[in-house]
Amino acid sequence: MNTDLKYAVFGAGSWATAIVKMLCENLDEVGWYMRSVYTKEHLLKEQHNPNYLSSVEFNLKQLKLSNDINEMANYADVLIFVIPSAFMHSELEKLMVNISKKIIVSAVKGIMPESGLLVGEHFHDIYHVPFENIAVIAGPCHAEEVALERLSYLTISCADAEKAKAIANNLSSDYIKTKISDDIIGTEYAVMLKNIYAIAAGIAHGLGYGDNFQSVLMSNAIREMKRFIKKMHKMKRNINNSAYLGDLLVTGYSTFSRNRMFGNMIGKGYTVKSAMMEMNMVAEGYYATKSAKQLNEKNKKKTRLPIINAVYDILYEGKDAKKTFKKLTEQLD
Amino acid sequence: MNTDLKYAVFGAGSWATAIVKMLCENLDEVGWYMRSVYTKEHLLKEQHNPNYLSSVEFNLKQLKLSNDINEMANYADVLIFVIPSAFMHSELEKLMVNISKKIIVSAVKGIMPESGLLVGEHFHDIYHVPFENIAVIAGPCHAEEVALERLSYLTISCADAEKAKAIANNLSSDYIKTKISDDIIGTEYAVMLKNIYAIAAGIAHGLGYGDNFQSVLMSNAIREMKRFIKKMHKMKRNINNSAYLGDLLVTGYSTFSRNRMFGNMIGKGYTVKSAMMEMNMVAEGYYATKSAKQLNEKNKKKTRLPIINAVYDILYEGKDAKKTFKKLTEQLD
Repeated sequence: MNTDLKYAVFGAGSWATAIVKMLCENLDEVGWYMRSVYTKEHLLKEQHNPNYLSSVEFNLKQLKLSNDINEMANYADVLIFVIPSAFMHSELEKLMVNISKKIIVSAVKGIMPESGLLVGEHFHDIYHVPFENIAVIAGPCHAEEVALERLSYLTISCADAEKAKAIANNLSSDYIKTKISDDIIGTEYAVMLKNIYAIAAGIAHGLGYGDNFQSVLMSNAIREMKRFIKKMHKMKRNINNSAYLGDLLVTGYSTFSRNRMFGNMIGKGYTVKSAMMEMNMVAEGYYATKSAKQLNEKNKKKTRLPIINAVYDILYEGKDAKKTFKKLTEQLD
Repeated sequence: MNTDLKYAVFGAGSWATAIVKMLCENLDEVGWYMRSVYTKEHLLKEQHNPNYLSSVEFNLKQLKLSNDINEMANYADVLIFVIPSAFMHSELEKLMVNISKKIIVSAVKGIMPESGLLVGEHFHDIYHVPFENIAVIAGPCHAEEVALERLSYLTISCADAEKAKAIANNLSSDYIKTKISDDIIGTEYAVMLKNIYAIAAGIAHGLGYGDNFQSVLMSNAIREMKRFIKKMHKMKRNINNSAYLGDLLVTGYSTFSRNRMFGNMIGKGYTVKSAMMEMNMVAEGYYATKSAKQLNEKNKKKTRLPIINAVYDILYEGKDAKKTFKKLTEQLD
């Protein structure tokens, strides 16, 4: 793969900011598209993102900032999308540039809510990007720890190992170790599912379950994730690798996870709507829960998904969290 | 199995106290041996253990207390040992009763340091207890949460499923769910190994590694545990079941774990000796590290154990924790 390819990050949240920081360790120039004019102006004036990871100071000479998604899509060869899945549709609507020859990297932590497609599938089906030009970045990785330059590991998945390696190299540094994988579908599902389990962990915590139960929940969650992914895309994979189990653990055990926080509020008695209003955002796992449920409904022989079903019943069927979890505890072991 | 069998717990630490509490939910009488005369007197006077889980109040009518290990071994049909592995030898030296016909249950979280034998193997080899009369209790279960009656899950392993079921029934209650397993050897190794990984988690924390790294460490730990146990005793087992992965997580992520605390002090720069003195006890994982290392040395083809080797080098070879972990991070993925 040509090593002179131009990279651009699309999005300005904490994870997008962290990825720009990682790329700046290796590249002379990094494109960065953000919707907000204010964020761009603030970056130009203060050298940091006003809203996320504001302790990270950027060298402006390295950044090519733009509020125009088409300008940035034209500029870059490697387009890294780091936009919440709920906003992907409205952002991509603005895109007029033909991106079918570009390399598309998804760091979106969810599924396209409108179509139920994985982000990679979406770019393949709608934008005619061949699968060997689509990659996924998976953790386990809190953006906040990247800001602190604490050692973190990433997995870059792509059907084309050379491309995965090149992207991995541009993300690696003293504090970022990378590995590559060819399980792009499994990785995308894992990234999506972990957020549902983080909501479940939050609900359990909110209801007063303790550490003993949390560990049983996580042990059941990784087995459920394995069943789900195997049904969707059967291939040889070790579900205990960092990109699957590691990512589940960092999300499920983190009190900083927005999904866990959302679940915690539900467990404490907030309605779904009031929890969303209180958080002033929608947790990725909220959409993921519906998508996962629907994907499983399509299977002729359904996979046993007690945790996802319990979260779905609470979030979408208005079922009582306490009773639903009491029932769930009977299905775990 | 005769349901009128008499049960006795040997030990008076927090886990022993929790097991007595669980049994008291089901049995009219529970034998309880403890070395300390003071603890027994305090229990008789105040109805609680003075040193551990002192919020748990016992009904004295249910307890048969004794400071005489032989009296208690004579009394009981089911002997549950919950003594730190480092003190098992000195306690068992006092035992004069023939226990070869008894049912022996190990809730010891380690290996016999003198012989490197699993506790079950020890009772088989030295006391001629047949394997079908030996069982193991595994978590994930903090004793402190049993005291609070927070929902917890236990796994009872025994080659004889009927015996496992009977013991499980006597431990089950509103807040304790049990399952049975026939993987007694794998369960015992898992219980022992998790303490080493908890020390590793503590060292990492003490050295300043963050949550991202902890999740990578745990993801590597469960894969290492799987390799270790498979080499020792190959059978069909799902390493992600609660008794293995769940127990690892509750220990590795708990700030209450004494093994993690011990590791944390080492990571912060304490010497092994001063950390032990400061804690006024020896963490189980300290002995487990040496045993695991030695067991692996005996293998013709050694298993790759980067985490255990790193902990061993720090605890027994005087290697610098920071440098050793830096090297370890290169071996994880």
